[in-house]
Amino acid sequence: MNGGAMKPVRVGLIGLGVVGCQVARILTEEAEALQARTGIPLRLEKVAVRDLGKERDFTPEGAILTTEPFDVVNSAEVDIVVELIGGEDPAFDLAIGAARKRKGFVTANKLLLALRGAEVFSAFEKSGARLGFEAAVAGAIPIIRSIRESFSGDQVELIQGIVNGTGNYILSRMTDEGSRFEDVLKDAQALGYAEADPTLDVEGIDSAHKITILAALAFETVVDFSDVYTEGITRITPEDVISAGELGYRIKLLGIARRIEDAISLRVHPAMLPQRCLMANVNGPFNAVETRSKRAGVSTLVGRGAGGGPTATAVLSDIVSMARDIASGGGARMAPLGSPVGGMEKLPVIPMDELESEYYLRFTVPDRPGVLAQIAGALGDNGISIASMIQRERMENQPVSVVLMTHNAVEADMKRSLTHIESSGICLAPTMIIRIAENDRD
Amino acid sequence: MNGGAMKPVRVGLIGLGVVGCQVARILTEEAEALQARTGIPLRLEKVAVRDLGKERDFTPEGAILTTEPFDVVNSAEVDIVVELIGGEDPAFDLAIGAARKRKGFVTANKLLLALRGAEVFSAFEKSGARLGFEAAVAGAIPIIRSIRESFSGDQVELIQGIVNGTGNYILSRMTDEGSRFEDVLKDAQALGYAEADPTLDVEGIDSAHKITILAALAFETVVDFSDVYTEGITRITPEDVISAGELGYRIKLLGIARRIEDAISLRVHPAMLPQRCLMANVNGPFNAVETRSKRAGVSTLVGRGAGGGPTATAVLSDIVSMARDIASGGGARMAPLGSPVGGMEKLPVIPMDELESEYYLRFTVPDRPGVLAQIAGALGDNGISIASMIQRERMENQPVSVVLMTHNAVEADMKRSLTHIESSGICLAPTMIIRIAENDRD
Repeated sequence: MNGGAMKPVRVGLIGLGVVGCQVARILTEEAEALQARTGIPLRLEKVAVRDLGKERDFTPEGAILTTEPFDVVNSAEVDIVVELIGGEDPAFDLAIGAARKRKGFVTANKLLLALRGAEVFSAFEKSGARLGFEAAVAGAIPIIRSIRESFSGDQVELIQGIVNGTGNYILSRMTDEGSRFEDVLKDAQALGYAEADPTLDVEGIDSAHKITILAALAFETVVDFSDVYTEGITRITPEDVISAGELGYRIKLLGIARRIEDAISLRVHPAMLPQRCLMANVNGPFNAVETRSKRAGVSTLVGRGAGGGPTATAVLSDIVSMARDIASGGGARMAPLGSPVGGMEKLPVIPMDELESEYYLRFTVPDRPGVLAQIAGALGDNGISIASMIQRERMENQPVSVVLMTHNAVEADMKRSLTHIESSGICLAPTMIIRIAENDRD
Repeated sequence: MNGGAMKPVRVGLIGLGVVGCQVARILTEEAEALQARTGIPLRLEKVAVRDLGKERDFTPEGAILTTEPFDVVNSAEVDIVVELIGGEDPAFDLAIGAARKRKGFVTANKLLLALRGAEVFSAFEKSGARLGFEAAVAGAIPIIRSIRESFSGDQVELIQGIVNGTGNYILSRMTDEGSRFEDVLKDAQALGYAEADPTLDVEGIDSAHKITILAALAFETVVDFSDVYTEGITRITPEDVISAGELGYRIKLLGIARRIEDAISLRVHPAMLPQRCLMANVNGPFNAVETRSKRAGVSTLVGRGAGGGPTATAVLSDIVSMARDIASGGGARMAPLGSPVGGMEKLPVIPMDELESEYYLRFTVPDRPGVLAQIAGALGDNGISIASMIQRERMENQPVSVVLMTHNAVEADMKRSLTHIESSGICLAPTMIIRIAENDRD
């Protein structure tokens, strides 16, 4: 802020992958523009890579390269450590090391913060060092900053979103083309939109990492990743996508965290969204996060959730924010979660059995009289009433699909009904269940 | 951040209207929760109102009430001044006074920042005082913070949005009900969604205020409000709304700021958005702001743009951010616009005549042979080609509407064509022109 010659803020970078290269390039090639904009000189001082000899998109000139990431953390020449290697190990030790050395730490590592968040947040809080993780959730969407700063005077009641670009890309293509999950996945892998091992994305685990972080932030509580109910998109069929469309819905993989009085509900699963609602129209690799808060009502942030450019933008925004903090001469402005972890109580997690929802059900059953009555009877016996039904055209001696939408029901009742129906032997394939998203605009 | 007893950050409030009452209530009734969350005690110290005797939703106990707003600015007991009276005078002097006294200043006053922004921003920059104006644009949508912080390492190329809730409410109802502008306006006034004098909202002036502020922030330039081309929604008819729907569009009032090389385009006008795009689905009192930036691509933030609750949330977020700054012991983290105004050059504004756009045109003409040929001829002579056409059913001896969509054309050519067509005497009512929004998802 002041006009005189300012001490540069020195950045150390760990990891020169797709995002790392972009960050290094921006810090190097756009150094002047960044300084003109912020008034603060930023300098890429040290970079740790696994292999010094590897060919890269960008190799920073002027920065010291090392193969030892702890050299970056321990260097007296580094003010802000940027960790872009991902995974739990050694990222956890690097984070704790940076906290101890009271260095700023910027990370895009959602897995680390989901699995070891409580320890990491508390280490930074105790040392008074700064922690930035805007890039860990939903790429360029400024959701972390929004909860920490924009909703600081409000109370978040619900946070839900499409937070996995790969999953959304696959579901969007299944919807647009009526294609099978396996085929789109193969194509997505060939195009580089999905990993060779797509488990984290398609099984909802990556979304669960992100909802763990968002819930901790939004509800100011300690969240265990293992408390998140997690269900992926691998069982969704073209028929489900088509039926959803006929019923006026689109299927999206949602991460959902809701506060209900003094407890929270945490879950990741495919959900049906009304076609006209905003999130239903967030397609391809885009992410969206919706917050519902006491005073601001519903807010939805939409943007690119992954990729080098969007993630680099999020990383840079943390670097610049920290550089501004440092240059202003003050200490850390807040705890990593906004609120101090020290004083947080762990809110109890509501068991999935107690969830109330409307449901989409698809049964595969023989085409014979009485089957529908049997299904409807078992649902009715558990207090579940049917809102609408689709039965597909029949082919001689082929199993038929019976698609039902229910009114609001309790998950435990639904499970009991389905166990009953399946035990009767009429189901010729596993029954598909998709929950309907809560989508009451306030 | 530190555990010891912290000095309270003292807030002075000017204006106890709808938003002011909410802010006062939160600072008073939720003081403990705010302190638990931020670690900082906030205290409402002084409040200026016009009339001490007036009945209010909330009258703060414990704060000193005064009728002299400058008492709040000049008080040694106030760290942050919150201005919620709106208008240019005395808000401008209050802002400048706060800057001189080096107090934090939080305002929701878009008119002030649009008309006198350059002076206000520069006063705060020079004195090193903090200025917060999240509430001035799009209520609870964190667009100011996003541009200042989240896009600090990126380059915004386009920022456009639905930034006037009243206008969007009216257009949404016209679209849903096929009602006339005048009727919906009257209803909106009765419901309190529109002011008795709706000029600022329906003529696009309020949107122009906001786009002035957003453009200054996004493009780091000095923006003159008078440079914004401004056109409201008063001339839109039910027929336009219906034709838009038939053509696959919805009509929204957009504020648009685009950087094209070293110049900017600034405009507010009704625009046609493809029905499936996100902003087309932002209805009622909701606002939306879309940014397109070099690395992050397209991001869209949607939320409530006005009203006591959303605006109070935005005001509170600025108060908390400043309190965190103050408590951290540092100086101001950045200039009011992120970048220093001092070094800003005023980017030239591209004249509307040079705009390129596709157009929707509705002519009211006599139902006789040759008229369409005349229109198409005049357009063709100016290099404008027709993409599609709707002609409504005819009634004997009644004028007919001819609705055309053009391919990309230059505004000057369009104007010339229309002058030519109107001078020929075939138009029985003024021709309606609506520009098609740019909506290429990257």
